[in-house]
Amino acid sequence: MALISPSRRVRRTMFSDGVEAAGVKAYTVYNRMLLPTVFESVQEDYHHLKEAVQVWDVACERQVELRGPDAARLMQMLTPRDLRGMLPGRCFYVPIVDETGGMLNDPVAVKLAEDRWWISIADSDLMLWVKGIANGYRLDVLIDEPDVSPLAVQGPKADALMARVFGDAVRDIRFFRFGMFDFQGRSLAVARSGYSKQGGFEIYVDDTRIGMPLWNALFEAGRDLDVRAGCPNLIERIEGGLLSYGNDMTDDNTPHECGLGRFCDTQTAIGCIGRDALLRVAKEGPTKQVRALALEGGPVPPCDRAWDIEANGKRIGQVTSAAYSPDFKTNVAIGMVRMTHWDSGTQVQVRTTDGVRDAVVREGFWL
Amino acid sequence: MALISPSRRVRRTMFSDGVEAAGVKAYTVYNRMLLPTVFESVQEDYHHLKEAVQVWDVACERQVELRGPDAARLMQMLTPRDLRGMLPGRCFYVPIVDETGGMLNDPVAVKLAEDRWWISIADSDLMLWVKGIANGYRLDVLIDEPDVSPLAVQGPKADALMARVFGDAVRDIRFFRFGMFDFQGRSLAVARSGYSKQGGFEIYVDDTRIGMPLWNALFEAGRDLDVRAGCPNLIERIEGGLLSYGNDMTDDNTPHECGLGRFCDTQTAIGCIGRDALLRVAKEGPTKQVRALALEGGPVPPCDRAWDIEANGKRIGQVTSAAYSPDFKTNVAIGMVRMTHWDSGTQVQVRTTDGVRDAVVREGFWL
Repeated sequence: MALISPSRRVRRTMFSDGVEAAGVKAYTVYNRMLLPTVFESVQEDYHHLKEAVQVWDVACERQVELRGPDAARLMQMLTPRDLRGMLPGRCFYVPIVDETGGMLNDPVAVKLAEDRWWISIADSDLMLWVKGIANGYRLDVLIDEPDVSPLAVQGPKADALMARVFGDAVRDIRFFRFGMFDFQGRSLAVARSGYSKQGGFEIYVDDTRIGMPLWNALFEAGRDLDVRAGCPNLIERIEGGLLSYGNDMTDDNTPHECGLGRFCDTQTAIGCIGRDALLRVAKEGPTKQVRALALEGGPVPPCDRAWDIEANGKRIGQVTSAAYSPDFKTNVAIGMVRMTHWDSGTQVQVRTTDGVRDAVVREGFWL
Repeated sequence: MALISPSRRVRRTMFSDGVEAAGVKAYTVYNRMLLPTVFESVQEDYHHLKEAVQVWDVACERQVELRGPDAARLMQMLTPRDLRGMLPGRCFYVPIVDETGGMLNDPVAVKLAEDRWWISIADSDLMLWVKGIANGYRLDVLIDEPDVSPLAVQGPKADALMARVFGDAVRDIRFFRFGMFDFQGRSLAVARSGYSKQGGFEIYVDDTRIGMPLWNALFEAGRDLDVRAGCPNLIERIEGGLLSYGNDMTDDNTPHECGLGRFCDTQTAIGCIGRDALLRVAKEGPTKQVRALALEGGPVPPCDRAWDIEANGKRIGQVTSAAYSPDFKTNVAIGMVRMTHWDSGTQVQVRTTDGVRDAVVREGFWL
C-alpha cells in the first residue's frame, strides 16, 4: 500500500488532531476530506466496534444546507421519496437522482424547519447539482456548505457513553430522529443514526472551537467503557448491508437497482426531476440488483476495482465490496447481479484480482 | 504519513498497472481517482523532470463532454471568458464560476467541434453543476463523463520522445493546440499542454485497451532519454506559479482574486451565469489576490492546511501551497494576500505548522 500525500485540498477536519493522536494508520478521501479507515487493524477495529464503543470522525459527511421559501420544494425536486409527511426533527434517507433516474448521492436529509434543511451527503459534490437546479429553475433558496461536522459514537455501549456527556435524555432519541442537546453552552443536533449496525449517534458539531473539547470529553467520560477512536468498518458495513456510494452504486444505477425502491414514491413524489425516468422501472422492476454474496476460501485481496461475476462463462454482474469476516468465517461481499442469477442459493464465480472464487448469492445480509 | 486505503470508490486508471510497476510511493485522490504524487522522492522527481522526460498518469483530469445543438451556448454560460473567437482544434483555459462569481473549477476547454466540447477538469464534480444548469434551462445538450484519460509527457525531452512514437509532426503542434495522431490504428487527440513549465504534451486516450500499450511504447522508445514515470511535482508547479484548485483557490474566490482576471471578458461574455457578479469586481479589482512568497529558513513542513500570513500581528492572508526548492534555495509558496500587503518586497510572517517564518511577497513566480 502507498502513502497518502498531505495537501490543503484534501481537507483536515476539526477532529484531525484527535485522530492523529489516536494513531490512525490509514485514510481514504471522502468529499475531498480525510476519512480514517484503520486504527489498530481492520479486524481489530471490527471486534472492538461490536463489543464496546467508538468515536468516529465522519466530518466528511458534509452538509448541504437549503434555506429559504423554496427549500422544501427544491428538496422534493431532488428525490423520488415523498417528503410531504416529513416533520421537522426527522431524518430521512433519500436517494437523489438526476433526470435519467441515476443515483447522484444517497444522503440523509435532516429537516430542521420547513424552510431549512441539511443534506448529510455521501461522496459526491451534490451541492453543485443542487445549486445548478436552483439557479436554472430560479428558486428562492440559499445553498451552502456550512462547516457542520458530524462526530459519530457507535457500538453497543454508545448509549452509556452519550448519557454521561449529554445526559440521560439522549437515551430517548428514537431511530432516525434528532434532538437538540447542550455541550459547553452550545446547542447541538444529536441524531440516533450512523454507518454501522451496532447502534449509536451522530452529533452535528457546528463550531470548530468545540470540536476537540467534545472529542476529549467523550474519551474522558468513556475510559472504563474502553472507548476508542474508530471509523466506518469495511467488514461490519458489508455484513450489515450498508451500501457505499461510489463503491456499490454510481450514477449508472437507479435506486431500484440498489435495492432502494422502497424509498421511491414515484406515484406521489410530484416535482422530482427523475420521476418520469423512474416510473417505468418502478412498474417493471430492475433487471439487475444489489445482492449479498459469500465468496469461498480464505481472505480475498482488497476489492480496489469491480470484480466480474460469471456463470457458465458469461458475465452476469460484478462484486464491488468484499472482505473476510472473522465472525461469519467467510468472505462477505456486495455485488450487482443480473435477474437471471439473483435468486438466493445461485452458484456463481467471482473473478477477483488474484484468481477465481466460487460464490453463492444469499437471501440477505448477515446482520 | 498514513497509508491510503484501496476501494473501488477511489478509482484506478487505465495506467495504474504501469504506475505500480514503476514503484509509486504515494498518491493523492483527485476527482475520486488515484493521482500519483511521488516515485523516487519529491526532490528526485523534480530534478529529473527538469532534465529529462516523464510520463504522467493524469487520467484524473476527467472530461465532461457537452454534445448537441446547445453545447456552445452552455459552454459560454459556464465561463466569463469570451469564447466567440474560439475555433475547433483549440484549447482554452477557462475559469468556471457560479452565480456569485465563485470559482467552481479551472479546467481546460477543448473544442472538438461547434457542437462537441470536452472540459478537462480540475478537482470538483463539475459535471453535476453543468447537468443542473442544462436541466434547469432545458438546454438541448447531452452531458457525460466519457472514459477519456489524459496521459502527459513532460520535460525538456518530451518532443524527442513523442516524435518517436507519433512521428515528427507532433513537433509542429503549437501551445494549447491539438492535433489528431495515430497510435495502433486509433486516432488520439494530442495537445501541447500539461501541468508543468518544462514543456510537453497531453494525449487524450479514449480506449482502455490501448492505455497500457501506449504507456509501454513510450517507455520502450525513450529508454536512452532516461524516460521515467512521474507526476505533477509540488516544487516545480509552485516555482512556475501553476495554481491548484482546492489548494490555492476554492469556490470562495473570484477569478480576479486568483489572478485570472485576464480570462474574464465581463463586457462581452454574454450569457455567463456569473457575469453580473463579476462586473463590479472587474471594474474595481479584488481586495486580495494570489501572490508568490518566499519563506526564509530551511524546508517547511508539508502545507496540509492554510497557514495564516500576518503583518504587525494582524492576519492579512494565507499560504496555501509551499515546498522547499533545491534550485532556488528557498521555500517557494503560493498565498492569497490582502491588497494592503500584496506589493512585491513586503515583509510578512507566515504561521506554519511548526512555527513562524519570515517571508517576503515577490513580484512574480520563479519560472
